[in-house]
Amino acid sequence: MPVLKNIGFLATCKDKGAQSDIHPITQAAIAWEGDSIKWVGKEAALPDQYMNEKMHDAGGRMVIPGLVDCHTHLAFGGWRPGEFEMRVRGESYLDIAKAGGGILSTVEATRKASEQELFKKASGFLDEIAKQGVTTVECKSGYGLSLKHELKTLQVYQRLAEESPLHIVSTFLGAHTIPPEYKDDRESYIELIIDEMIPTVAEERLADFCDIFTEESAFDIEESRKILLAAKAAGLTPKLHADQLTSCGGAELAAEVEAASADHLEQISEQGIEDMAEAGVVGVTLPLATLYTQEEPLNCRKLVDGGVDVAVATDFNPGSAPTYDLPLAMMLTCNQGRLTPAEVLKGATINAAKAIKRDYRVGSIEVGKSADFAVIDAPNPNFWMYHYKGANCVESYVKGQKI
Amino acid sequence: MPVLKNIGFLATCKDKGAQSDIHPITQAAIAWEGDSIKWVGKEAALPDQYMNEKMHDAGGRMVIPGLVDCHTHLAFGGWRPGEFEMRVRGESYLDIAKAGGGILSTVEATRKASEQELFKKASGFLDEIAKQGVTTVECKSGYGLSLKHELKTLQVYQRLAEESPLHIVSTFLGAHTIPPEYKDDRESYIELIIDEMIPTVAEERLADFCDIFTEESAFDIEESRKILLAAKAAGLTPKLHADQLTSCGGAELAAEVEAASADHLEQISEQGIEDMAEAGVVGVTLPLATLYTQEEPLNCRKLVDGGVDVAVATDFNPGSAPTYDLPLAMMLTCNQGRLTPAEVLKGATINAAKAIKRDYRVGSIEVGKSADFAVIDAPNPNFWMYHYKGANCVESYVKGQKI
Ligand SMILES: [Zn+2]
Ligand SMILES: [Zn+2]
Repeated sequence: MPVLKNIGFLATCKDKGAQSDIHPITQAAIAWEGDSIKWVGKEAALPDQYMNEKMHDAGGRMVIPGLVDCHTHLAFGGWRPGEFEMRVRGESYLDIAKAGGGILSTVEATRKASEQELFKKASGFLDEIAKQGVTTVECKSGYGLSLKHELKTLQVYQRLAEESPLHIVSTFLGAHTIPPEYKDDRESYIELIIDEMIPTVAEERLADFCDIFTEESAFDIEESRKILLAAKAAGLTPKLHADQLTSCGGAELAAEVEAASADHLEQISEQGIEDMAEAGVVGVTLPLATLYTQEEPLNCRKLVDGGVDVAVATDFNPGSAPTYDLPLAMMLTCNQGRLTPAEVLKGATINAAKAIKRDYRVGSIEVGKSADFAVIDAPNPNFWMYHYKGANCVESYVKGQKI
Repeated sequence: MPVLKNIGFLATCKDKGAQSDIHPITQAAIAWEGDSIKWVGKEAALPDQYMNEKMHDAGGRMVIPGLVDCHTHLAFGGWRPGEFEMRVRGESYLDIAKAGGGILSTVEATRKASEQELFKKASGFLDEIAKQGVTTVECKSGYGLSLKHELKTLQVYQRLAEESPLHIVSTFLGAHTIPPEYKDDRESYIELIIDEMIPTVAEERLADFCDIFTEESAFDIEESRKILLAAKAAGLTPKLHADQLTSCGGAELAAEVEAASADHLEQISEQGIEDMAEAGVVGVTLPLATLYTQEEPLNCRKLVDGGVDVAVATDFNPGSAPTYDLPLAMMLTCNQGRLTPAEVLKGATINAAKAIKRDYRVGSIEVGKSADFAVIDAPNPNFWMYHYKGANCVESYVKGQKI
């Protein structure tokens, strides 16, 4: 039963009270056994039974729950650095897409890549992501867009879940865009998703969630409802990329289908906020995507004030958010999204865990939960985000093991 | 005569041609002797005389000139984390200042701190700044605001210039704000600056530059002109914090007094751009300050297109820019300032060197210049800023020494 002691500031991030209440304990210690937390409290109150156990020392630093990145497109072929410069020069996401660039070039490269190639590349990303104190990563398919290549991507995630030390959660995103071979026959692609992809993914237990890009230029509300309800019937929980470019009722649909989360939301309506709050749908902000696409960032304040649990994620993907820097996303959510450091910390831990329905196991430091925590060289969350030096993570533990 | 070889991509950043032309050499090598560069070129063309020298290996990575942070307020007492949360919640810079917080609390803490305390703190910052590949740092006074305490701060910088491995450049910023004891007698404070501070700083060679915060709420155009002309007559080159909150003719004044640089510039006028281009004043963008103060970022594109050399700096200070993350400032200048990665690289090297009139010695990799370079784990500047992972600096050299 190892113990982590000499924790100057422990942000437990318990799911209780306001988003701003991280339930801190100063001069704290944590004890765990195997992969589960056994005891959390003031170090002075550490029970005798733990006194002779292996002691790790946090050096008086801050300890937080292992961070949860609840929205990534982790496995993809190729890169798109050329588009980065196009966007810097002022071309819009839709302009680039219409010019034949954008997501379809990643679809082509992902289809060409072998499962082993995708695994190796994604595995390398996870090694670096872990250095930031991230211990849980949600991973979406959506660059395969055929039964074969969507399954290939999800199998990569299945293997990562087995072989990576991190917690990996898979999401099927066949409804990311219409693949080129169906561009004049979108009905048939939607049928393929509903009749073949969803049943296979569900049957082979390759994903927990079914996500969709709900947007006038992608899948409209009616198509989205149809696909998400089919997914739900098959046992996949809905998630949505919603209200990113236009306010088209995505948040409202998320509430209607009882999605785990609605993500992006830059154009969310007042009604959408109300509906999400009532239905308990987590709102996921993706500030790196707005930064890289030169769009107006989401004002998260109005969501939190409206009663929505807000999570913060990277949206890591080779087009609109080519960095997996979750602490940077958190800092941007303070400065642009108008949430306090405590709120963004809950956003990247317990609320992110809720967005992937893993809050029973990860996202907070509580007895019975997975022993996932990061030692951060900062005195508290406010100073961490204020005197920003990136993650500044000294070490982290996942499932009780130092990584 | 050590050699750095196996450089996959060498951005020499020569001061020639457009800001976008970084004059790259692929498969390159650099040779130096003592603190100065002796040879730069294709590795295949490395002259025989260097073949038996000590070889460092860049591992095929990118090498750039040591980065130049041409705008920091490095030495200060205390911190102001409480204001960070105030600003996140929507209080403006001026609101915080009017409420008695802001810069004056740093003045108080800086006056209370001993020279040794300030030295130790600033020295610790430099150690971390150097890890980003930064090899030259400009440092401003301006939290002393009395002869004694301004000299104390500048003496800290003098000692850092002697003891730190980095290149340190000092700027006198007595005209940062009116200190509390002169709040009903600003005329007398301006006299003190002109009659006592500037002559002493110049005589004791404690600074190369005299900077000022030109703003309706700080020093107006007429006051600024008077102070900067007195500084210039004493041998200190003018610099300005200009057009940050209001368009009040700061850029025009910078051109008129032949300043080395005008910094901030978010509210610059068309006339200001024309004047700066004609007078050869460098425009310094400070995107971390706009990020942390929730102000509109500067569109640098219009400056570059208008013929102004643009530099990128952090503005590191405990209030409006509490991070010294220069690579992050560069990435923001791409995504928000609309410059390409090549342009921001020149902005944080040769153009930053120009902003502190050190381009004869630092800011580019050329024969005769200081042997300052950083090995970055990225294939080229575009990919570095696109798949952003912070500095990602593997090692750096300053004055020929690995640090
Ligand atoms: Zn996404
Ligand atoms: Zn400044």
